[in-house]
Amino acid sequence: MGDPGGIGPEVLLCALGDQEVRSRVRPRVFADGAWLDRLADRFGWKADFTVEQSGGLPAGLAAGEFSEAGGRAALACLQAAADALERGEIAAMVTAPMHKRAFALAGASGPGHTEWLAQRFGADRAVMMLCGPRLKVILATTHVPLRELPRAINRRDLVNTVLVASRELRRYFFEKGPRLALAALNPHGEEHGRPGREEQEILMPAVEDLKSQGVDIEGPVAGDTVFARAAEGRYDAVVALYHDQGLAPLKTLHAHDGVNVTLGLGVVRTSPDHGVAYDIAHRGIADPASMRAAILLAAEMAGGVRP
Amino acid sequence: MGDPGGIGPEVLLCALGDQEVRSRVRPRVFADGAWLDRLADRFGWKADFTVEQSGGLPAGLAAGEFSEAGGRAALACLQAAADALERGEIAAMVTAPMHKRAFALAGASGPGHTEWLAQRFGADRAVMMLCGPRLKVILATTHVPLRELPRAINRRDLVNTVLVASRELRRYFFEKGPRLALAALNPHGEEHGRPGREEQEILMPAVEDLKSQGVDIEGPVAGDTVFARAAEGRYDAVVALYHDQGLAPLKTLHAHDGVNVTLGLGVVRTSPDHGVAYDIAHRGIADPASMRAAILLAAEMAGGVRP
Repeated sequence: MGDPGGIGPEVLLCALGDQEVRSRVRPRVFADGAWLDRLADRFGWKADFTVEQSGGLPAGLAAGEFSEAGGRAALACLQAAADALERGEIAAMVTAPMHKRAFALAGASGPGHTEWLAQRFGADRAVMMLCGPRLKVILATTHVPLRELPRAINRRDLVNTVLVASRELRRYFFEKGPRLALAALNPHGEEHGRPGREEQEILMPAVEDLKSQGVDIEGPVAGDTVFARAAEGRYDAVVALYHDQGLAPLKTLHAHDGVNVTLGLGVVRTSPDHGVAYDIAHRGIADPASMRAAILLAAEMAGGVRP
Repeated sequence: MGDPGGIGPEVLLCALGDQEVRSRVRPRVFADGAWLDRLADRFGWKADFTVEQSGGLPAGLAAGEFSEAGGRAALACLQAAADALERGEIAAMVTAPMHKRAFALAGASGPGHTEWLAQRFGADRAVMMLCGPRLKVILATTHVPLRELPRAINRRDLVNTVLVASRELRRYFFEKGPRLALAALNPHGEEHGRPGREEQEILMPAVEDLKSQGVDIEGPVAGDTVFARAAEGRYDAVVALYHDQGLAPLKTLHAHDGVNVTLGLGVVRTSPDHGVAYDIAHRGIADPASMRAAILLAAEMAGGVRP
């Protein structure tokens, strides 16, 4: 369900009303059924799917803002879905957006779903990937302030992240490959006409290390062109060094149908690439395209696992 | 002409053979005519335009690499075109790519065309803008190594750059506006859920300052979504804080027809947004789309100046 005060419930309702989605998945929705019913009634939509009652909400809960009751309910739904996933009752999990304060309520380490799920499923390293039909981007770091970024990038973590991503991309998406590119940190990968310091000291050795382990990776490739080349088919995915480096091109190309995927959990988990959007919640105007794409991608991944 | 060893001469020849280009401009090409003729002959193209003989080349000059003779010739062409532009004999200048070593030969301060032209035309502040049909991006800094970036961004320079860009965008492109957005530096413009340090100390005050001077600017807006919003029409242009922040989304959206524009020179100057590409030069395979777009945009700007 995600945060009941945000747009999660309505994009979920809308996406599950889509014909293609219903032809590909048998949904089990972990939510407060009464809350979904009220929303569906308001917009004249149908809620014809199995609801696993979780995270019951008090009457009169406000929409369009964070509430502690809403945050706790969102967490309860997430926990119930994770339990079902672990027991093998569901093949994949799609999460609707939650506010980071909900995770704080649970005393979760880290700010969001990815960290919570890594802990829940005992994953050494959960890797964040953003996908659109034309571009896949892997993040080597997530929410690091830019000024701390050069210190946050090191060869060991970079190599381990790419190893997880490469293995998982092969498992779920590419029988051969994947062909990866590593984005450079500095403009053109250079400083004053020579390879930049981080390119020489961290990125180039990481690429050599990965190649010696059989990973098909090129780079560092200039950060202004590597995404365009991937979109044209030269690479299957780009390893971006930081949040905006990867997400700006991804969202520019896929403003509405980008999907967030967590790799390395041992289970399939996707989500829309937007947040709770309290400012437009419960008005029936939120775009369900990303949720729809997240559900279809989860179905593809769950159905397409190579044995 | 640009660097004779690079792809400049061939994309120039090809773009000037385009029917729409020829219906919009009367080209005067500053180049070594014999070099262009040889290239045109090789590919069976025509060179039916006025050549202002500049930068004569020695026989047997190698293609596909930098040479001092080639670099000096490229510079001589640039100087001749700048002189003609200053005398009002031409309405706009389109530059083919040069290698940065050519500028070093001339003892030029700064690494490229933009800095050389700023000096040549006595501009206080030349501003780099990248344009495609769906997105315009202004760069607040150009080739700064990422680790030095937070120190390179300050309120005064940012405000002055946006003032130049706003004035020039109105002069050449938008009768009203332009509606600008300033990209944030940190992911979501935040650190640990609060506005980031640079957002609070530099970007938010700069936006207030600009608004008080009548500039229509929003921000800081999260760097992962601001370009998508601009591409959808919410902003006329985005002010990016650094090279790859602006160029990665621009080139991902406009891989072939992006154009580089220098604002603030007092004259019109555009160029393709690619480099010399020695690796594919003189094979007749270089894509002329960006050169074609650069010529058409220069014509539009030169014809559309508001009195």
